[in-house]
Amino acid sequence: MSQFDNVSVVKKANVYFDGKCVSHTIVLADGTKKSVGVILPASLTFNTGAPEIMETVAGSCRVRLKGETEWKTYGEGQSYNVPANSSFDIEVDEAYHYVCHFG
Amino acid sequence: MSQFDNVSVVKKANVYFDGKCVSHTIVLADGTKKSVGVILPASLTFNTGAPEIMETVAGSCRVRLKGETEWKTYGEGQSYNVPANSSFDIEVDEAYHYVCHFG
Repeated sequence: MSQFDNVSVVKKANVYFDGKCVSHTIVLADGTKKSVGVILPASLTFNTGAPEIMETVAGSCRVRLKGETEWKTYGEGQSYNVPANSSFDIEVDEAYHYVCHFG
Repeated sequence: MSQFDNVSVVKKANVYFDGKCVSHTIVLADGTKKSVGVILPASLTFNTGAPEIMETVAGSCRVRLKGETEWKTYGEGQSYNVPANSSFDIEVDEAYHYVCHFG
């Protein structure tokens, strides 16, 4: 599924890390919030509030969850889970397109 | 209106100028396509195919349409029109949030 249907989209984007990450918030018909975004080439650390499932739409990334030593690579169609109140390091070499699902 | 309702959103973003411009395509219920996007601090030149109405959601920009010498400044809530098959120069000092309506 390359698109979300029947959703609301917040016009103003979320801009993080001086624009290295740009996302738009969407709200599904049942009230569920998600975000569709891009991470540009960078090494970043994101903190989570709610748990997140990061779905890779295009591109790939290397991810290291808090407390882990191993980096894992995720490509198109692959997802990874990040616990609540945690963090993860992410490295991106080319534009990484994602959907963030909040748990 | 801070959001679009009952639309489809393409998950994969449009990334231009090495990420200086990131947008997501939305499709309204009647089939109309628009994009919601951000331009990061930069001086850029965009080419148009279809005519565009650029609506400023947040931030501000300076714009010079093709063939004009004058730069005009547009802030939140202000829009500007760009003819078909033309171009415009745009300068942005802080994240500029927009909706692009295609004519």
